[in-house]
Amino acid sequence: MATTADRDAAAQGKFRVLGTRPVRHDGIEKVTGAARYGADMLLPGTLHGKVLRSPYAHARIRSIDTSKAEAMPGVRAVATSADFPIIQNREVNFAQSLQNPRLMAENDLADKKVLYKGHAVAAVVATSPHEAEEALNLIEVDYEVLPTVLGWREAMKENPVLLHDTLTERMTVSRADPGEDTGKPGNVASHLQLKLGDVEQGFSEADVIIEREYNTQTVHQGYIEPFACTAQWMPEGRLTIWTSTQGIFGVRGNVAAILDIPESMIKVVPMEIGGGFGGKGTGYLEPVAAVLSRKTGQPVKMVMSRKEVFEGTGPSSGSFIRCKIGAKNDGTFTAAQLYMVYEAGAYPGSPMAGGATSGLSAYKLEHALVDGYDVVCNKPKTAAYRAPGHPQVCFAVESCIDELAQMLDMDPMDLRIKNVAQEGDRATTGVPHAHVGLREVMEAIKAHPHYNAPLGGPNRARGVATGYRLNGGGSGSSATINVLANGTVNVTTGSMDLSGTRVAVAMQVAEVLGLSAEDVTPQVVDTDSVGWTGGSGGSRITFDTGRAAIAAAQLAIDQMRDRAALLWELEQDDVEFVDGNFVSKKNPEDRFTFRELAGRLMATGGPVTCSAMDTQGGVGGALAGNIFDVEVDPETGKVDIIRATAFLDIGQAAHPSYVEGQMQGGTLQGIGWALNEEYFFSEDGVMANSSLLDYRMPTTLDLPMIDCEIIEYANPRHPYGLRGAGEHPIIAPLPALGNAVSRAINQRVYTLPITPGSVLESINERDANGS
Amino acid sequence: MATTADRDAAAQGKFRVLGTRPVRHDGIEKVTGAARYGADMLLPGTLHGKVLRSPYAHARIRSIDTSKAEAMPGVRAVATSADFPIIQNREVNFAQSLQNPRLMAENDLADKKVLYKGHAVAAVVATSPHEAEEALNLIEVDYEVLPTVLGWREAMKENPVLLHDTLTERMTVSRADPGEDTGKPGNVASHLQLKLGDVEQGFSEADVIIEREYNTQTVHQGYIEPFACTAQWMPEGRLTIWTSTQGIFGVRGNVAAILDIPESMIKVVPMEIGGGFGGKGTGYLEPVAAVLSRKTGQPVKMVMSRKEVFEGTGPSSGSFIRCKIGAKNDGTFTAAQLYMVYEAGAYPGSPMAGGATSGLSAYKLEHALVDGYDVVCNKPKTAAYRAPGHPQVCFAVESCIDELAQMLDMDPMDLRIKNVAQEGDRATTGVPHAHVGLREVMEAIKAHPHYNAPLGGPNRARGVATGYRLNGGGSGSSATINVLANGTVNVTTGSMDLSGTRVAVAMQVAEVLGLSAEDVTPQVVDTDSVGWTGGSGGSRITFDTGRAAIAAAQLAIDQMRDRAALLWELEQDDVEFVDGNFVSKKNPEDRFTFRELAGRLMATGGPVTCSAMDTQGGVGGALAGNIFDVEVDPETGKVDIIRATAFLDIGQAAHPSYVEGQMQGGTLQGIGWALNEEYFFSEDGVMANSSLLDYRMPTTLDLPMIDCEIIEYANPRHPYGLRGAGEHPIIAPLPALGNAVSRAINQRVYTLPITPGSVLESINERDANGS
Repeated sequence: MATTADRDAAAQGKFRVLGTRPVRHDGIEKVTGAARYGADMLLPGTLHGKVLRSPYAHARIRSIDTSKAEAMPGVRAVATSADFPIIQNREVNFAQSLQNPRLMAENDLADKKVLYKGHAVAAVVATSPHEAEEALNLIEVDYEVLPTVLGWREAMKENPVLLHDTLTERMTVSRADPGEDTGKPGNVASHLQLKLGDVEQGFSEADVIIEREYNTQTVHQGYIEPFACTAQWMPEGRLTIWTSTQGIFGVRGNVAAILDIPESMIKVVPMEIGGGFGGKGTGYLEPVAAVLSRKTGQPVKMVMSRKEVFEGTGPSSGSFIRCKIGAKNDGTFTAAQLYMVYEAGAYPGSPMAGGATSGLSAYKLEHALVDGYDVVCNKPKTAAYRAPGHPQVCFAVESCIDELAQMLDMDPMDLRIKNVAQEGDRATTGVPHAHVGLREVMEAIKAHPHYNAPLGGPNRARGVATGYRLNGGGSGSSATINVLANGTVNVTTGSMDLSGTRVAVAMQVAEVLGLSAEDVTPQVVDTDSVGWTGGSGGSRITFDTGRAAIAAAQLAIDQMRDRAALLWELEQDDVEFVDGNFVSKKNPEDRFTFRELAGRLMATGGPVTCSAMDTQGGVGGALAGNIFDVEVDPETGKVDIIRATAFLDIGQAAHPSYVEGQMQGGTLQGIGWALNEEYFFSEDGVMANSSLLDYRMPTTLDLPMIDCEIIEYANPRHPYGLRGAGEHPIIAPLPALGNAVSRAINQRVYTLPITPGSVLESINERDANGS
Repeated sequence: MATTADRDAAAQGKFRVLGTRPVRHDGIEKVTGAARYGADMLLPGTLHGKVLRSPYAHARIRSIDTSKAEAMPGVRAVATSADFPIIQNREVNFAQSLQNPRLMAENDLADKKVLYKGHAVAAVVATSPHEAEEALNLIEVDYEVLPTVLGWREAMKENPVLLHDTLTERMTVSRADPGEDTGKPGNVASHLQLKLGDVEQGFSEADVIIEREYNTQTVHQGYIEPFACTAQWMPEGRLTIWTSTQGIFGVRGNVAAILDIPESMIKVVPMEIGGGFGGKGTGYLEPVAAVLSRKTGQPVKMVMSRKEVFEGTGPSSGSFIRCKIGAKNDGTFTAAQLYMVYEAGAYPGSPMAGGATSGLSAYKLEHALVDGYDVVCNKPKTAAYRAPGHPQVCFAVESCIDELAQMLDMDPMDLRIKNVAQEGDRATTGVPHAHVGLREVMEAIKAHPHYNAPLGGPNRARGVATGYRLNGGGSGSSATINVLANGTVNVTTGSMDLSGTRVAVAMQVAEVLGLSAEDVTPQVVDTDSVGWTGGSGGSRITFDTGRAAIAAAQLAIDQMRDRAALLWELEQDDVEFVDGNFVSKKNPEDRFTFRELAGRLMATGGPVTCSAMDTQGGVGGALAGNIFDVEVDPETGKVDIIRATAFLDIGQAAHPSYVEGQMQGGTLQGIGWALNEEYFFSEDGVMANSSLLDYRMPTTLDLPMIDCEIIEYANPRHPYGLRGAGEHPIIAPLPALGNAVSRAINQRVYTLPITPGSVLESINERDANGS
């Protein structure tokens, strides 16, 4: 079995810096507690805001009386949706756009209706958080309680209770397609249909057809740090926001739209982020804190509790998926079809499209049909969660393939490899695959010692699955390089560091400039101090921001070639940069190390500062996979994971430790989704387990070591071959564990999470069926 | 008399933005108290440091016992000079350099000797400032008290008590000259000699020779905000310092040298600065706070009291100056000679050279000789103070000229105008004057209505004087321009804003880009986020940083021309930027406003971010002047200023309100220096008036409105003709008030400050002499 040391040794020599494991620049700050997160900000004169949240999952707001709260000593102001210009000036118009700041504003402070238990209704700011919280009780809201539409089933039934009076179904044919309004009222916000060939014809060519239905529940990202921000609105209209977020420019744009002020009047300063996983895109509290700061003339800080995080922020979708696959007896797929329903929560915008485009795309299919539905219901509005929409669909497809392999009596990896898509084959989107190592990952899984190792005990089985994802990216990243006199370099970006991207970007700069990683100091700055940069998501930062930083570093080299040329009385073209040295082509004995020339910048025109932007995109698709050995206790239904191996094609690992960290972290979250986690709702839509004690995420005690196999199938769209690392690892654990448990108990599992209770039910069902 | 409205009307049309009076970007933050100064910083877990200061003006430190302090509950660590690597690793070597970080380190924490009362000896850090202060009493220092060398007279007498055993006099012939060691031991650190022609010959050609001696006292800048900083040293060696300073890069360099760590490991973050006036160059507390943070692993905050500011930071020099001028009967100067002694305080480095080079330079002199001496004594080490060294020498020269005018029975401005230097005439440095408006300022004074207005009462007189200064500049400034999608722009610099330079730089950018001042958001950032930038001093920022920002803006225009060319399918050269519009030369109807094109940047390659550096220098010399009407109460000696007018050649006012602010502020400080302010020392060197109650700075109650006359004699070395504004206004008030009082009481004043007591003495002397 390949070890970390094997991998590092094999990779050696390819690059000077990339692929090594330097200490990350922000590491010590983080482990010593010196790093400053959202709640660490405390300006002089800060007031504290708290949010009043709806006790009902669905109700009309007849009136809000804030007068008693406002009269309470210590209270400085109260805010409601009446304070949001976008709500006052604009009606909801679903025909224009299903996801827009107008609806985000309503999600931040409800307008005429509350749409889920925990929906923000009003906010109080006071001299202490305790007074603010107390004052919430003095706000009188007159609700007209409405029937709860708790999930997609109630939402899609005939004549359902409607969440939005004016919502009509939109029909779209691609992820980017704004779609056409069908005029059909209901709770279905959109229907995405993807077609390849003729699925009926495909199924007619099949020797065997399998069709199964799968269910997953609402789950939360479970980041450690609750939302926290501080806003300071100056009388002249300039607004500064300190916040933990995945995207400072996204927060700036959202606040500007909701409050109807120019983006240029807002500065968003990033604090460190204690986990985001997609859930910390544009935030919830920032526009509220800004309004309260404007009202009081003081800085306003707002921090959520864990309960608020669970009930008031976006989890990922519960889903229902029907998967149908036709195959020849030799395993060749003839057609596949998906019917996917994703719960969006209170407002349109589940990650259904992500699942629809990727669910079948790892396989070569001439005939495929995907119908995806985005459905609103009385749950918190969903947000992105690591590989958004992929784990759900992958659970369905990869469970179905595993069951098909059993039906065909084939090795499940052989069945996958037989059908794997290659460069040039069309994905379900109709777009041909780029240079992508799907087969390489599958073969690496098959060839791995774990795959054929003895299970070593009864009630054990092995499950395997892969997870394809077409990453995001290309939204744009900026970077600035400052060359210091001692030959070290600062690299400034606007990319929030969720997972080690500071060091990964710095290493790329070091590679370009012939420096060590330690000689490059990365920093993440505010919206005023760097060019526009899209949020940290889509596994794009190491790739996109890396490309921008490489481009800035190359500009710096060009400017330094000018300086060397000046000193040697040559032209820029007469100076080349080779192995970290500036060398005269005219007289190769004339050379400066990077450091030597850096020391002469002040005397040759001043320091070199270069900025670049990258919008090319191309982080592209990749495959991940997992092998799990489980042991199921037939008495209690408890599933123990005995051994776990994760696989990922990373193109080229920038910093293998943080790739492994992503693989282990993603696998862990996938395990939680598969075995433990779910929002447990009462009938009237109240979450019954809104604490980390009751919402059971896996801990180290629940898990074996997760071994990591990094596959490096270079990405030609990056100078060093990088792909993305962040999201893929969460996808395959869901079906891999489902397959493992199914095989261990000899009864198929179709619903997540696979709790001890559900395992016992499956065992009982198996025994009742005599199978 | 010209009014502000007259001036603004006359200036109208010359520029679109420059010369107007927009609200400064940082104004509201500052007037509402939201701006964050040094002491507003409070990181989680901050500890508080306090400094133990010497009770003696001169003593040897036999030993320091910190054990009791360290044992006190709440105390976390103690620092002494033993914690400064530079002191431990390097001996003082005056032969190498008279001013160096080794000596700065000793000034921050005394090594073997204390050299002034208030000299820092040790520092304690504790969980509260009160505990730290209490613990100071537990530090036992064994002093061997030495005789006090309180001023230049004691310092220069034969066989004086020596402050530094190894100090020998250095002879230099220009300001930049490192000089030659004469080997002469003593308290004279350096002797600068400037020569033009043959002064003996010049005096032999004179019809009349005047020679007088002048004295000024130690005075303090009197900034509102005491020194305050926070340091956080991370275990991996990265150090962040938040501080109020005139130069973040200067602090970085000084701390790096004293603590022997690379500059690239230090980030200095600027807080707002509550006044600097030259006195906040490299600071005192930063290396101490850094050491204490390293010892404790926590952030350490240190804030001085007002008493510490007076006793432990750098004031300006007390001085003795002998001025000798020879003239023909028609007033033409034939020669001038200065003998100047400036007190440096405890370590070498008075601003003597500034005074020596500028003192006579406004006048055309074929023969001149200047001998300047930098002399150490047991007072706080002096620091720069607004036009460093100029007010002292100008008091001598301009008083002497006024007395000469009386002797020759000439109008004092006529005498000056007769001798004024012009472009091409050599200054005392031997360097010819550039394009400088000395005559223009003198003529503006002479022509001003105030100059001939009736005095309106008895015991009144009018005094006039001018003040020449060759500004610093060219040390280097960096600037970065970010173009935002809505057509506004951020301009990022490393130039601390002492006096409205944010708005003045933003206005220059607005002028270049065809925007309004409000569309340009200036910000001052930390050392990691902008190219190296020299400190805010030498009246150079509006000029130097302005030039850098203009260059960056021009780069942005070039990049935007590329984008327009891309959209129009042209070459960059086919696109011109005219009046804020990008216009196609091929088809002039194709045009984008700046805002329109800014909105299309994301779709044409991403945002435009451009950086530039300027090291050219050229802020150059200029003349200021003052007219004062005073009334002297013959009973009490009190001097009342009845009317005051200030003059300054600013080249081109960027923002006239802040030029006027500089003129009024400088005049006010000059008035304080002339009439009120002085360090009052006891015989053993203890400052007796170390509070703002006893150290009497002028308040608004002491002053009339100070009228301002801005002269705009364009500086050809700046694209818009700017000169510097910050320092000149402090110079001429000293002699102008001396001249006014001398004429009012008909008895010459040779010593500052002109206190009521000294006025009464002068009156008594006059009466005794029967004059």
